[in-house]
Amino acid sequence: MHVLILGAAGMVGRKLIDRLIRDGGLNAQAIDRLTLADVVSPERPKGFSGVVEVVTMDLSTPGAADKIVAARPDVIFHLAAIVSGEAEADFEKGYRINLDGTRALLEAIRRVGDGYKPRVIFTSSIAVFGAPFPEAIPDEFHLTPLTCYGTQKAIGELLLADYTRRGFLDGVGVRLPTICVRPGKPNKAASGFFSSIIREPLAGDDAVLPVHDTVRHTHASPRAAAGFLAHAASLTHAQLGDRINLTMPGISCTVAEQIDALKRIAGPKVAGRIRREPDETIARIVAGWPQRFDARRAAALGFRAETSFDDIVRIHIDEELGGKIA
Amino acid sequence: MHVLILGAAGMVGRKLIDRLIRDGGLNAQAIDRLTLADVVSPERPKGFSGVVEVVTMDLSTPGAADKIVAARPDVIFHLAAIVSGEAEADFEKGYRINLDGTRALLEAIRRVGDGYKPRVIFTSSIAVFGAPFPEAIPDEFHLTPLTCYGTQKAIGELLLADYTRRGFLDGVGVRLPTICVRPGKPNKAASGFFSSIIREPLAGDDAVLPVHDTVRHTHASPRAAAGFLAHAASLTHAQLGDRINLTMPGISCTVAEQIDALKRIAGPKVAGRIRREPDETIARIVAGWPQRFDARRAAALGFRAETSFDDIVRIHIDEELGGKIA
Repeated sequence: MHVLILGAAGMVGRKLIDRLIRDGGLNAQAIDRLTLADVVSPERPKGFSGVVEVVTMDLSTPGAADKIVAARPDVIFHLAAIVSGEAEADFEKGYRINLDGTRALLEAIRRVGDGYKPRVIFTSSIAVFGAPFPEAIPDEFHLTPLTCYGTQKAIGELLLADYTRRGFLDGVGVRLPTICVRPGKPNKAASGFFSSIIREPLAGDDAVLPVHDTVRHTHASPRAAAGFLAHAASLTHAQLGDRINLTMPGISCTVAEQIDALKRIAGPKVAGRIRREPDETIARIVAGWPQRFDARRAAALGFRAETSFDDIVRIHIDEELGGKIA
Repeated sequence: MHVLILGAAGMVGRKLIDRLIRDGGLNAQAIDRLTLADVVSPERPKGFSGVVEVVTMDLSTPGAADKIVAARPDVIFHLAAIVSGEAEADFEKGYRINLDGTRALLEAIRRVGDGYKPRVIFTSSIAVFGAPFPEAIPDEFHLTPLTCYGTQKAIGELLLADYTRRGFLDGVGVRLPTICVRPGKPNKAASGFFSSIIREPLAGDDAVLPVHDTVRHTHASPRAAAGFLAHAASLTHAQLGDRINLTMPGISCTVAEQIDALKRIAGPKVAGRIRREPDETIARIVAGWPQRFDARRAAALGFRAETSFDDIVRIHIDEELGGKIA
């Protein structure tokens, strides 16, 4: 089996590659070829016995999608995207990469023809939703995004569903919740604090909490995200029906509950490294975000997230800190 | 005020032009310039004292959108589209006109810049919805179209909302129900019988009913459709908020209720011209269509449809038959 990962250099991409190599395959089939593509050169993974190709490419460059699809990969994970903040700041770039790039991929697949019908797993986002919300967002809730990024993801979902319905490919759209704990350095994303209030204290550093601790949000670990994508690749069209875009499950909890979990696992001294510095701009942005989902379809289709925020903290300690707390 | 109508040669376009000329203006402002564009040359309207330009153009031709927008029309009605059946049969043409054409229009407006911010009224369709449905489709129901046309309209809605949110234009998306009674010759659309079972008998001709008379559907007259578009142009962003795409109200009734209305108004002899010829293909297509909407937002915003199917029959007799029944 030949697997292509677009956006392979990103955090979720790297977690997915690790997972696929550890599993040794996908859908009970061995993976003998991995093509890893991104705008920056993805790392060559260790411990994989098959053929690995590393490709540096921009999906929105004319001809690039056709070239990458010409080898007829069986499964395509499409994770490549300009993130929320940049897509809002650079309107043209966001549409070029997130909309035109995605469409170029789907069109390249369609143009291969000749019975070629790969499975395409598209990472969407809960940014497809826009306030106001009911207490829990049901699977039938409409998409009224309030960012360019969310708009581009919602359009990607619609295109994926139409190309699937027409039989050009076999798509699944996976709406990821906020990924927590995100490894690496703090970034300037408005959502960054959800991870940094866990990550920094565990590493011995101070963290800033810019919102009230009653703020509620839905999280899944990087491990769960990789699991969602791998599981999506195993679903059949008969299981999915025409509604192929799915809100993933996650842990809905308040910031106070996040901090309680950190305290339980790492002790009060570690949790004491969180400094409260209210930031009205961030508070206002976060107030427009979804808090809770009633992701029944995904649960019924076998997608599994963590069952407590404690698990999310433990996974971070396990995967990123070698089991050790500073 | 300068009004541009894209798709001016179509049935709804012609009704809208008549309405605007009869009203003498829009939003209490006189219209002094009308630009009428379509892929076939639109008719030059009678009884209008201002300047009329008639333009034959394809919105998806490079440069065409920039050219038509250069005169900075104050209000743009975007009605141009490849219809459902053709968009399904010719995949590339449907995406080129319905998606690329719409996007080209929005981009052309954005590129004018310099404070130009026209009102853009986009005709969407209930084809943005896909079965299965609740008994009445609420305003918050998700869009899972089951046709290319519905997909392209749903994407148009998302783009319109994003360009509006970013301040490039002032958009309103108007999801039209099935327009009934459609004037003119019978066509091969699967929905054609909803109109032809009224239109043909009133004209002295036989009509074929291919489905059971328990089939329920939602209708609005061509007059109501023109009214929806004119009313949409009067709404402010403050009234609309961010959710600018609206399901229009309509009359939800069964085919039996349609026939009863015809009988009440034109007598049993006229209604006797309907011949029942079940067609399983049409019955199956129609079974996937929405039956009823709970279009609360549109009603609260002042959109008005007919209040009975009798009114719809009377409007057809009045507008198309000069008040006479054959």
